[in-house]
Amino acid sequence: MKKSILIALAILMAAPMVTAQQPGGQFPQRSEAGRTTEKTFYSKVFGTDRAYSIYLPRDYETNPNKSYPIFYLLHGASDDNRCYENKAGLSSIANQLTASGEAIGMIIVTPNAGGTEYEGYYNMDGDKYPYEQFFFDEFMPYIESNYRVKPGKENRAIGGLSMGGGGCVWYALTRPDLFCAVYEMSGALGIDESSSLWNPRNELAAKKKASYLEHICSERIAAATAEEIEAYKTILWYADCGDDDFTIDYNWDFFKAMKKAGVPCQLRIRDGGHTWTYWASGLNIALPLLSARFGRTN
Amino acid sequence: MKKSILIALAILMAAPMVTAQQPGGQFPQRSEAGRTTEKTFYSKVFGTDRAYSIYLPRDYETNPNKSYPIFYLLHGASDDNRCYENKAGLSSIANQLTASGEAIGMIIVTPNAGGTEYEGYYNMDGDKYPYEQFFFDEFMPYIESNYRVKPGKENRAIGGLSMGGGGCVWYALTRPDLFCAVYEMSGALGIDESSSLWNPRNELAAKKKASYLEHICSERIAAATAEEIEAYKTILWYADCGDDDFTIDYNWDFFKAMKKAGVPCQLRIRDGGHTWTYWASGLNIALPLLSARFGRTN
Amino acid sequence: MKKSILIALAILMAAPMVTAQQPGGQFPQRSEAGRTTEKTFYSKVFGTDRAYSIYLPRDYETNPNKSYPIFYLLHGASDDNRCYENKAGLSSIANQLTASGEAIGMIIVTPNAGGTEYEGYYNMDGDKYPYEQFFFDEFMPYIESNYRVKPGKENRAIGGLSMGGGGCVWYALTRPDLFCAVYEMSGALGIDESSSLWNPRNELAAKKKASYLEHICSERIAAATAEEIEAYKTILWYADCGDDDFTIDYNWDFFKAMKKAGVPCQLRIRDGGHTWTYWASGLNIALPLLSARFGRTN
Amino acid sequence: MKKSILIALAILMAAPMVTAQQPGGQFPQRSEAGRTTEKTFYSKVFGTDRAYSIYLPRDYETNPNKSYPIFYLLHGASDDNRCYENKAGLSSIANQLTASGEAIGMIIVTPNAGGTEYEGYYNMDGDKYPYEQFFFDEFMPYIESNYRVKPGKENRAIGGLSMGGGGCVWYALTRPDLFCAVYEMSGALGIDESSSLWNPRNELAAKKKASYLEHICSERIAAATAEEIEAYKTILWYADCGDDDFTIDYNWDFFKAMKKAGVPCQLRIRDGGHTWTYWASGLNIALPLLSARFGRTN
Repeated sequence: MKKSILIALAILMAAPMVTAQQPGGQFPQRSEAGRTTEKTFYSKVFGTDRAYSIYLPRDYETNPNKSYPIFYLLHGASDDNRCYENKAGLSSIANQLTASGEAIGMIIVTPNAGGTEYEGYYNMDGDKYPYEQFFFDEFMPYIESNYRVKPGKENRAIGGLSMGGGGCVWYALTRPDLFCAVYEMSGALGIDESSSLWNPRNELAAKKKASYLEHICSERIAAATAEEIEAYKTILWYADCGDDDFTIDYNWDFFKAMKKAGVPCQLRIRDGGHTWTYWASGLNIALPLLSARFGRTN
Repeated sequence: MKKSILIALAILMAAPMVTAQQPGGQFPQRSEAGRTTEKTFYSKVFGTDRAYSIYLPRDYETNPNKSYPIFYLLHGASDDNRCYENKAGLSSIANQLTASGEAIGMIIVTPNAGGTEYEGYYNMDGDKYPYEQFFFDEFMPYIESNYRVKPGKENRAIGGLSMGGGGCVWYALTRPDLFCAVYEMSGALGIDESSSLWNPRNELAAKKKASYLEHICSERIAAATAEEIEAYKTILWYADCGDDDFTIDYNWDFFKAMKKAGVPCQLRIRDGGHTWTYWASGLNIALPLLSARFGRTN
Repeated sequence: MKKSILIALAILMAAPMVTAQQPGGQFPQRSEAGRTTEKTFYSKVFGTDRAYSIYLPRDYETNPNKSYPIFYLLHGASDDNRCYENKAGLSSIANQLTASGEAIGMIIVTPNAGGTEYEGYYNMDGDKYPYEQFFFDEFMPYIESNYRVKPGKENRAIGGLSMGGGGCVWYALTRPDLFCAVYEMSGALGIDESSSLWNPRNELAAKKKASYLEHICSERIAAATAEEIEAYKTILWYADCGDDDFTIDYNWDFFKAMKKAGVPCQLRIRDGGHTWTYWASGLNIALPLLSARFGRTN
Repeated sequence: MKKSILIALAILMAAPMVTAQQPGGQFPQRSEAGRTTEKTFYSKVFGTDRAYSIYLPRDYETNPNKSYPIFYLLHGASDDNRCYENKAGLSSIANQLTASGEAIGMIIVTPNAGGTEYEGYYNMDGDKYPYEQFFFDEFMPYIESNYRVKPGKENRAIGGLSMGGGGCVWYALTRPDLFCAVYEMSGALGIDESSSLWNPRNELAAKKKASYLEHICSERIAAATAEEIEAYKTILWYADCGDDDFTIDYNWDFFKAMKKAGVPCQLRIRDGGHTWTYWASGLNIALPLLSARFGRTN
């Protein structure tokens, strides 16, 4: 009898699902392939454990000699590394798209940049929040030596949403030698200095404000050297923002700055706001796009 | 200062969200417009309370004289009336699509057809599970007299997924005078008699098997009278099923039976399986489609 | 034998197609339903014949008592009324979408606004090119009395591309009482005064320049009265422009002016430029959208 | 002044376009990059010139040391090699998708399989129409040695529509060692023997009928050896057919045969019929899909 029918009937008959249990009461170790799992590792830069969530391709364990391109995917403010899995079903999207051939297997990793009084992707408060050192000098090397990641810029992309959209663009503007593609969604790529919310409520808030004002992407592009502009042209830039999203002006400014600098940059304005519905559909666009890009050297 | 910037900063600054509370510790009554809420009402047919979930359009309370078309949306097996909201974000989808003009405001209601040893949309076990009487004679009249529903077949559609996909098609085949459109997803529109799972484990299982075998949609269509076929032609039929879904053969059989009978029927096979990712995207297709259909009398 | 198979084989066998010819060498009069045909009528305003292209719904002739909503669809510069059919396959798109239920039957009409030394949708050169009088006082009444058009603003939409995108937005800003929806693509909604191309090469060019400078949509919105703003809110505004299109800044300015005025306005930036590939896909979006809108009075 | 504005104004001002002409009245040789051109070469197999149309990527001439993956794209019956460019705008689609990063540069080539009393992709009439020898032994080697084609199965895909959909699937079933992906649209993957159209009108028609009956894809799959099945699993199979298309049953049979054989196969049923509107949108799906696939060796 066909397996599919058996599954169908199992569901239709509403039999309670029981996960197979090993003798002795131990559940077998579950494969991490095709799943997103949360991990921690000790960070010397921070002097404490740091969390990250990592999705491994469906064939990660059955192809032990295969290596994969990597997509660093940064989360937004007031959130943490688990959001893409828990709020958008990242593993389900990636598994479906690779099963259909629309995307290739890739490792997708989200480091935690929240959960403390500090948050975000920029260094802050002197050496008290050295996130950029952590990301480039410690986290990336850790991930790329502990998982089977293909080497080279052509196999490394970065993306993110909201605060993480700002982070991923800034990182690629800073280190264009490291990434072949950037997919930012609803990116906080700038900030409005005049906001009364920015009146320093306390010392740390004042420092955060100062930090954000130093990281306006359109200004960074306008100040780029000719050499940097050439380096930016080696990257596939993709900005995706809803027409109801409060970050839309920053996304427009970024797109226009890129156009003015002569750097090809994609812009998509779709229907929607600053919501997980939007970002889940964005992931469905991002993974096929990166799949066409990865591994292409010219 | 712009409201959007205030919202943006509120989010970026990660201030904890506090819901306004009334003096005396009472939360104000929250509007039900633009939301899905769960309700119960006493069913004489069943002799007990029955639950349903209902989505009311965004302007339901601000336009107290406006009435709306209605979409009955049936859930699947092993599930209940809350699933569309909790697993697919129904209200978020409907609010977004009506805000953008891609869909019109409609009432969307899901009655509970699960949660007991019986489940499903067909009568079963003599008069012990009279679901069809409940649906047509009690539930529909109750909803359409207690909410501002536009009258007439042209303002009434039905849809569903899996077991509910079978239910919605069967209901429209039985009562084509009531519905102007049917949107079924991954419908259990038939069954495989040879399955060993159907060997009656107990008396009720035997009755369920007998019931399913009497409700094969393609057979119902093949047996339809000329008059029924003409009535079917007044309905917009839409079948939507993933290429990895175990119900795909039933969907194909249904589509072919309609074609053979000369009844226009849409078929869409998209990428995916028997999953909420698929059904959430299906809702994004269904609501604009029904919006073009509602209220059109010829 | 099934008709579909016969058709299939006819194509596979590559038999030469012969159109049936009547005795006497006359082809039978072909139905205009489901097709776009070019027509002319005598314009008193212009004192000469004026051309237009009109698409009639598939059931226009079989339902002689049925009336339809209407979509005025304006062409771009250096083009004429035939472009939507000849370059985007308008009738094929409309027939497919209505067959599938995704759009309702509507009349789609494009008046000629080109082909002379004047062109465009604004009055020009004193009374020598009174296009606005022609459109509102003569063309619209002519069409709506010679075809079965449903009455009322709620059954009338306007759209267009490039120069016609500017025209349709301006017309709706001027007469918001007439249209329920506007779908503009790649709209020339403004102009760059500093362009050397605008240095008047001759007297007419100077007049054209003056005319364009008086029709900048974002300025018109900024100058609107409170009453006009309220009227604008009764319209579904939809701007659709490619990220490689040279009109993108004008589209952005329009969207921002609407936002600032508090008028809901949809913006979509999709992949593409000022091309018929883009506009053909835009029609596939526009017709379902208008179908949900037509006939809704609140 | 901005180039984009200059272009915009040029269009808005409706200045007649003049193609630059060289002194002496000769037009400069036009680049073939980013364009589809028609070519011929002498075929020893046929003993005559044979035509083909070839699209070269946008950077083909500026990157003289770069090689590209190749997509063989077969045309339908009663048509010829020029159809994808002339009826679907192939070069425009490919240029747009590569500009946006959604597809990579690839060579797309369509050999002529029509235009004589014979047509199609199967050998016919003894040695009088040795198309398979021509394709595999002469055409493919000619193309891959005269253009900069990347070597290896992982850089070679095949596709087609209608008769060419049948051809591309059959070729990949016959030579699974050669292709990494198959994208068939509206494929004539089978035939109905009972059709009266197949009553041999003449000797050649009888031979054509016999040929088609020997090339039913689902039967070929059912008869495949275990080794062949394993080889089929190395290919990304993608079937795309409209729900109004007369070939839908053949597409379904093919999909089911693949499922039964345990070979992963994608199926998409979208809205539409046997039309160029459908196939043009199919190309927009195919090129990104192949872009993710090309060059991946496991």
